[in-house]
Amino acid sequence: AYSSTKEESTGRPVGRYPVPNKKDMPYDIVELMEEVEMKTGFLPNVFKAMSHRPAEFRAFFAYYNAIMNKDTGRLSKADKELIIVATSVVNRCPYCVVAHGALHRIYSKQPALADQVIVNWKLADLSDRDLAMLEFALAVCRADNITEEHFQKLERHGFDREDAWDIGMISAFFAMSNRIAHYVDLRPNKEFYTMGRTP
Amino acid sequence: AYSSTKEESTGRPVGRYPVPNKKDMPYDIVELMEEVEMKTGFLPNVFKAMSHRPAEFRAFFAYYNAIMNKDTGRLSKADKELIIVATSVVNRCPYCVVAHGALHRIYSKQPALADQVIVNWKLADLSDRDLAMLEFALAVCRADNITEEHFQKLERHGFDREDAWDIGMISAFFAMSNRIAHYVDLRPNKEFYTMGRTP
Amino acid sequence: AYSSTKEESTGRPVGRYPVPNKKDMPYDIVELMEEVEMKTGFLPNVFKAMSHRPAEFRAFFAYYNAIMNKDTGRLSKADKELIIVATSVVNRCPYCVVAHGALHRIYSKQPALADQVIVNWKLADLSDRDLAMLEFALAVCRADNITEEHFQKLERHGFDREDAWDIGMISAFFAMSNRIAHYVDLRPNKEFYTMGRTP
Amino acid sequence: AYSSTKEESTGRPVGRYPVPNKKDMPYDIVELMEEVEMKTGFLPNVFKAMSHRPAEFRAFFAYYNAIMNKDTGRLSKADKELIIVATSVVNRCPYCVVAHGALHRIYSKQPALADQVIVNWKLADLSDRDLAMLEFALAVCRADNITEEHFQKLERHGFDREDAWDIGMISAFFAMSNRIAHYVDLRPNKEFYTMGRTP
Amino acid sequence: AYSSTKEESTGRPVGRYPVPNKKDMPYDIVELMEEVEMKTGFLPNVFKAMSHRPAEFRAFFAYYNAIMNKDTGRLSKADKELIIVATSVVNRCPYCVVAHGALHRIYSKQPALADQVIVNWKLADLSDRDLAMLEFALAVCRADNITEEHFQKLERHGFDREDAWDIGMISAFFAMSNRIAHYVDLRPNKEFYTMGRTP
Amino acid sequence: AYSSTKEESTGRPVGRYPVPNKKDMPYDIVELMEEVEMKTGFLPNVFKAMSHRPAEFRAFFAYYNAIMNKDTGRLSKADKELIIVATSVVNRCPYCVVAHGALHRIYSKQPALADQVIVNWKLADLSDRDLAMLEFALAVCRADNITEEHFQKLERHGFDREDAWDIGMISAFFAMSNRIAHYVDLRPNKEFYTMGRTP
Repeated sequence: AYSSTKEESTGRPVGRYPVPNKKDMPYDIVELMEEVEMKTGFLPNVFKAMSHRPAEFRAFFAYYNAIMNKDTGRLSKADKELIIVATSVVNRCPYCVVAHGALHRIYSKQPALADQVIVNWKLADLSDRDLAMLEFALAVCRADNITEEHFQKLERHGFDREDAWDIGMISAFFAMSNRIAHYVDLRPNKEFYTMGRTP
Repeated sequence: AYSSTKEESTGRPVGRYPVPNKKDMPYDIVELMEEVEMKTGFLPNVFKAMSHRPAEFRAFFAYYNAIMNKDTGRLSKADKELIIVATSVVNRCPYCVVAHGALHRIYSKQPALADQVIVNWKLADLSDRDLAMLEFALAVCRADNITEEHFQKLERHGFDREDAWDIGMISAFFAMSNRIAHYVDLRPNKEFYTMGRTP
Repeated sequence: AYSSTKEESTGRPVGRYPVPNKKDMPYDIVELMEEVEMKTGFLPNVFKAMSHRPAEFRAFFAYYNAIMNKDTGRLSKADKELIIVATSVVNRCPYCVVAHGALHRIYSKQPALADQVIVNWKLADLSDRDLAMLEFALAVCRADNITEEHFQKLERHGFDREDAWDIGMISAFFAMSNRIAHYVDLRPNKEFYTMGRTP
Repeated sequence: AYSSTKEESTGRPVGRYPVPNKKDMPYDIVELMEEVEMKTGFLPNVFKAMSHRPAEFRAFFAYYNAIMNKDTGRLSKADKELIIVATSVVNRCPYCVVAHGALHRIYSKQPALADQVIVNWKLADLSDRDLAMLEFALAVCRADNITEEHFQKLERHGFDREDAWDIGMISAFFAMSNRIAHYVDLRPNKEFYTMGRTP
Repeated sequence: AYSSTKEESTGRPVGRYPVPNKKDMPYDIVELMEEVEMKTGFLPNVFKAMSHRPAEFRAFFAYYNAIMNKDTGRLSKADKELIIVATSVVNRCPYCVVAHGALHRIYSKQPALADQVIVNWKLADLSDRDLAMLEFALAVCRADNITEEHFQKLERHGFDREDAWDIGMISAFFAMSNRIAHYVDLRPNKEFYTMGRTP
Repeated sequence: AYSSTKEESTGRPVGRYPVPNKKDMPYDIVELMEEVEMKTGFLPNVFKAMSHRPAEFRAFFAYYNAIMNKDTGRLSKADKELIIVATSVVNRCPYCVVAHGALHRIYSKQPALADQVIVNWKLADLSDRDLAMLEFALAVCRADNITEEHFQKLERHGFDREDAWDIGMISAFFAMSNRIAHYVDLRPNKEFYTMGRTP
């Protein structure tokens, strides 16, 4: 039957598409899910929702891994989460804003910053470097024409062209993720709302 | 030296980032490029541009392959290209509009239709089914909230929820691609402008 | 000297205008501040910022009191805070979103709801009644023409014309407050970020 | 019965909410109305409309009085009316544009200027000082982030930070008034259309 | 010398381009100007401004005449002026709004109506027929796609397809005129502001 | 009977209004049509559609002729077509974009340029002069206020004030034409899609 799957703890659906039973999932997907669940303490709903399409699950998380877990470049883990929060707000994506807001709090140890960026990034307590980083990410998010001036502005804050690619790629990847989340009606796990709020 | 690479035939740069020499590329990337070049008659610039980042090249084309070459669902090759053209126009992406407009002409054998969709999709010579498909794709493209009404409207034109996922995923993937194309300054190969214009 | 006043606990300015020393303030203003501080546990920055102009301080809080503390009508304290959060997000007002988000958590005992409304009110876990209430509040917030259809829609969810006035007036009053907060550069007290997050 | 009250002279309703009979109004409200009527020659509809809620009537006009009739600062009576006209046009508020356009004509003795500002303030016959004043007022009206550059631009035209507060507060107060006028459906008295047109 | 020409009575320039001396103008243009001046009592600035280009002067006024002075169809003179006012407001064109607002007052004998339409056409004291007429005119003004529904809505208010053409053509012609007025910086004669205000 | 007229070759309607039979048309209109058909090889649909209104047909093409075929000024035939393409895209006008894109290809002998401008004029292979020309044309197209800075920017690229008028007038005339095309539902002749694509 075509019905969406509910989160065990809340009875709320994970999203609009059915999630297969673990025993019907390909082994590599189960393995990745168990690894993530172990590390995070719970399984973020995006894994459940994407498991509806195993080939796309693999492509999505391989891509995510290639850009979020690469260890070159000047972007810290907190920087990457900040980019995701700021751009996902533009697309009003509940899952991405709430989940990556939580991850930002954990990586940055600045529990109020994501909340500030969600309301008004230009008025948040950010360094000039971080403002420049978000300005570039948001230009990519809006699909603006990206000109040499954009790159030069980043350079003035210490980001070279490889960093620009990293910022742009994260913004572009979440332009995709936010839209998937919308048609899947992906909702954040309740754990994300409170994670990292207290030191 | 940090300089962009030019297209051999025109002397115009492929994009903003340097493209490695073939001999410095990983073997699997060269192999994929040669296969594509053989099939298409030339190597589309997106392959050159993405080869700047081999891990992301692999992730990008694996994802592309998973959604564009899957053989389930009701979307024809021409349908998929039409979705790409209609959504890439919103993001004013020269590469995606021109390249996928060419592919649409070839697959659909309707040489004027992509040009019509580029100017004004609602006034193009499209069936109600195709209008409904583009309406959904464009709602995802704009990151609108996607509601049950959206799915019901698709169903009235013969698209089930799996087709909706396919339409949504292509729109979402090209939301990403359009934005990558912007920061990479990816330009279409000159061949695309004339492909498929005459029967 | 013309310099802004810092929050004692953080060294961050309260806003852009100087705040007088308590001893230079009119007695009625000091009295109100002490009453609020006693009740809340700290003095919300809006009181400090507005004390720069005693006559406007009195007018502002008299008006606030007339609409927020009236005891007729169907709007609960949580309803009123929800209206403020939803409309202040449109104006990207850090103080009002953060402070009234905190008050909403406290009055509603639903710690995640304000966060959901901040990202995307239409996708938040709200009843149809609450959606109708916010729809009217947001139409007023955007200075839309308000028609009989707006009132009829409210009536279908149990709100009569007096309730409509209450919703509209709160939305209108915070249209003013959000704009004052912008030119005053009013920032939320740090206490608001965490208030009411845990039951 | 719940029906709106008509203007005596035209039979047109004053607004959407009933206006109490004078004999049922609190004495202070009657007194203020009579004073205004004596001075203006007729009773502006905003007084009638707000009398539906005596507590809010008092708060509204006390606030109005505190900002419009203060006698410090560099804003003339005509300046204040110009700010109201320019910002109320943005919110398409018939009452505020027509009534305060009339007051501007009377105070400024420039009978065409308000009409020009209503169509296109940037092309109106305004001094650079007045353009700077309206630019700030309109930034507040749009709920833009207000930065140091905004204040510096005002300073170059002779407005200090206290004047900036005055401009901002009038813009903010009418952001509220315009929205109240919309849900109350407040219409201008017919007298306003012709007041001050001839010297 | 390349300088703009001033209005005799005010010393204000008519627009940005020089106006030839009467003795250097082609005879047919002088003749038309004298006829208009006789009828109106003064020469509207649009005639002066367009005389800078005699061939375009002739084409412009021939077109104007063909659509404004045709004597078939259901549009009264007042209807046509109302369409011009409502659409020229969208383009914030000082000349067209002020001049045709004056003409509307004269033809309609309703001195307040144009002022109402300038602020907010949907709240003006208009019949349903007039609202339908303006709705169509504004759809053309915004270059919306015009569908069968648009024509059907007009038909329900007694306008057939020939009337629709008339409404659309006036809206389209003033889409041109407003833009010419912008680059010419055409300003209204001072007489227009007061014409037709008193019966 | 009130029915639209179909293109002979395709059976598709020319537009929404009936086209008279040649024998019922005034002689001067037939003459002009035959001249155009001889020169172009087919009769562009705009001639057929406008013949529904002979007086407006004459005014429209006289105006068109006065601005498109004048032989003074710095605008080449290709420049004029480029302006039409770039501005008609903003109004999403199928006829004007497709027909004038074809004419641009023919006059410019650059078969890809119009296609580039249609997608994203700022990223097209244009000279700085051409970018400045389009920037002015698009400011007029959007009905922006046109200031001295606009003229000075044109001057820096060799365009004097008379050229500015020419650019502005073409943009303004097609602001009208695009809107007529919308309510007439004017569709391009099929010949335009392929004209000038191959050298």
